[in-house]
Amino acid sequence: MPDDDFAGGTVWLVGAGPGDPDLLTRKAERLLRNATIVFHDALVGPGVLALIPDWVVRVPVGKRSGRHSRDQSVINQLLISAVERGERVVRLKGGDPSLFARSMEEMTALAEAGFAARICPGVTAASSAAASAGLSLSLRGLARRVQFVTAHAAKGEALDLDWTRLADSGSTLAFYMGRAAAGEIGRGLIGAGLAGATPVLIACDVSLPTERLLRTRLDLLSLAVEAISGDKPTVILIGHAVGETGCGVAAAAANGAIVDGIR
Amino acid sequence: MPDDDFAGGTVWLVGAGPGDPDLLTRKAERLLRNATIVFHDALVGPGVLALIPDWVVRVPVGKRSGRHSRDQSVINQLLISAVERGERVVRLKGGDPSLFARSMEEMTALAEAGFAARICPGVTAASSAAASAGLSLSLRGLARRVQFVTAHAAKGEALDLDWTRLADSGSTLAFYMGRAAAGEIGRGLIGAGLAGATPVLIACDVSLPTERLLRTRLDLLSLAVEAISGDKPTVILIGHAVGETGCGVAAAAANGAIVDGIR
Repeated sequence: MPDDDFAGGTVWLVGAGPGDPDLLTRKAERLLRNATIVFHDALVGPGVLALIPDWVVRVPVGKRSGRHSRDQSVINQLLISAVERGERVVRLKGGDPSLFARSMEEMTALAEAGFAARICPGVTAASSAAASAGLSLSLRGLARRVQFVTAHAAKGEALDLDWTRLADSGSTLAFYMGRAAAGEIGRGLIGAGLAGATPVLIACDVSLPTERLLRTRLDLLSLAVEAISGDKPTVILIGHAVGETGCGVAAAAANGAIVDGIR
Repeated sequence: MPDDDFAGGTVWLVGAGPGDPDLLTRKAERLLRNATIVFHDALVGPGVLALIPDWVVRVPVGKRSGRHSRDQSVINQLLISAVERGERVVRLKGGDPSLFARSMEEMTALAEAGFAARICPGVTAASSAAASAGLSLSLRGLARRVQFVTAHAAKGEALDLDWTRLADSGSTLAFYMGRAAAGEIGRGLIGAGLAGATPVLIACDVSLPTERLLRTRLDLLSLAVEAISGDKPTVILIGHAVGETGCGVAAAAANGAIVDGIR
């Protein structure tokens, strides 16, 4: 069965999950063990990379916000060249390949070159942040809708988000890549009507030993992100469901996380 | 390390993922192997349950839309009784525990009884449906926002969703438990301004050998759901990103899926 995964030059786009190697799926682990070459994001942590056997070639291909990263077309060409020369190719992406991972560019390029691409889904960072903090993204009566949003804009460009649509006190917002835009997110949502006291969870290095969680409120978002994020990947959860927790600080701390509070 | 997971009477709410046992996380697998009792949803498939060792007690506790299910307070009490008598307790839920899984009720009840609850996140059904169909939920220029919504209402009650907020042609909608409400979803979104030709993917039994995927359009949603869903768990993806695909029918079919089209 594992030998068939790569049949006919199929390239796998594999979700690495949030960072903890234990949060990789069994399928992702199998694909990594049966690949001959793995192209991975900079965001994929060392614990996950350690699951790749020694004889498999690893190629880091960017991309980390604000740092040098290879151009997407270069990545596409690397994937095509590898599968053309008969490699068993995995493209390993942080989180889930169908959420803010630019998977479609790579799949389309592969398809145009005559190769099939398939996706192995992964645990997304917002789910992992909620798990670490002991909260639920959806909550009856408080949040029947969960909105996943990327807060990443090309350098020098504005965010171009529709704050009126996003600012719904009956939903939970999960901002990916929200570190640099924290000030704009807070101003935008409050300007569109969300209360300054709306609960917020800031999660850095989700699921890793260096994970930090910070509970705060919307009008302190920018300050709080500055206080803990540094240059770490950061997910920001916003909404009344975020203010509820079923486990409390003790259990979250047992998880290796530090739950501070700026409120 | 595994022996410490349940220390002090910690109960684990574990995400089983969409159904394919290969999409379980390594952590979830470890927790199942080290439990003494597992309370599981009816939606958790046989492949996942087969990973639970023979000596571990399995207790099905509902809940499946439209079928008999145990009352939530009964489930809470079962969990508390088990941990009180010294069991190593896993509460296994389909998908991800922080998305439409009523985890907070159970965590709060456990906390009130003096026990800690922790969450092991899982792959959610929308990610898995997107992976099977070879599409991306987010897409630059087409969908910068992904909205996860539950379409499950108590029997006899209306859905109570804000169609105006949901009907954004620049986002992707993922409706969970949308089978019974398909007609209402189509009418609501079109009434609020979404085009009848908006692309839709209906995914039943996501990731299982019986998985079926159907591409259609919003004004045919109700008809299409009737045509393939039966009584199967169904995720409905709606939006322009859903109309793009990087792998095409051949790769999706290789995945064991049937991609039909009512368009």
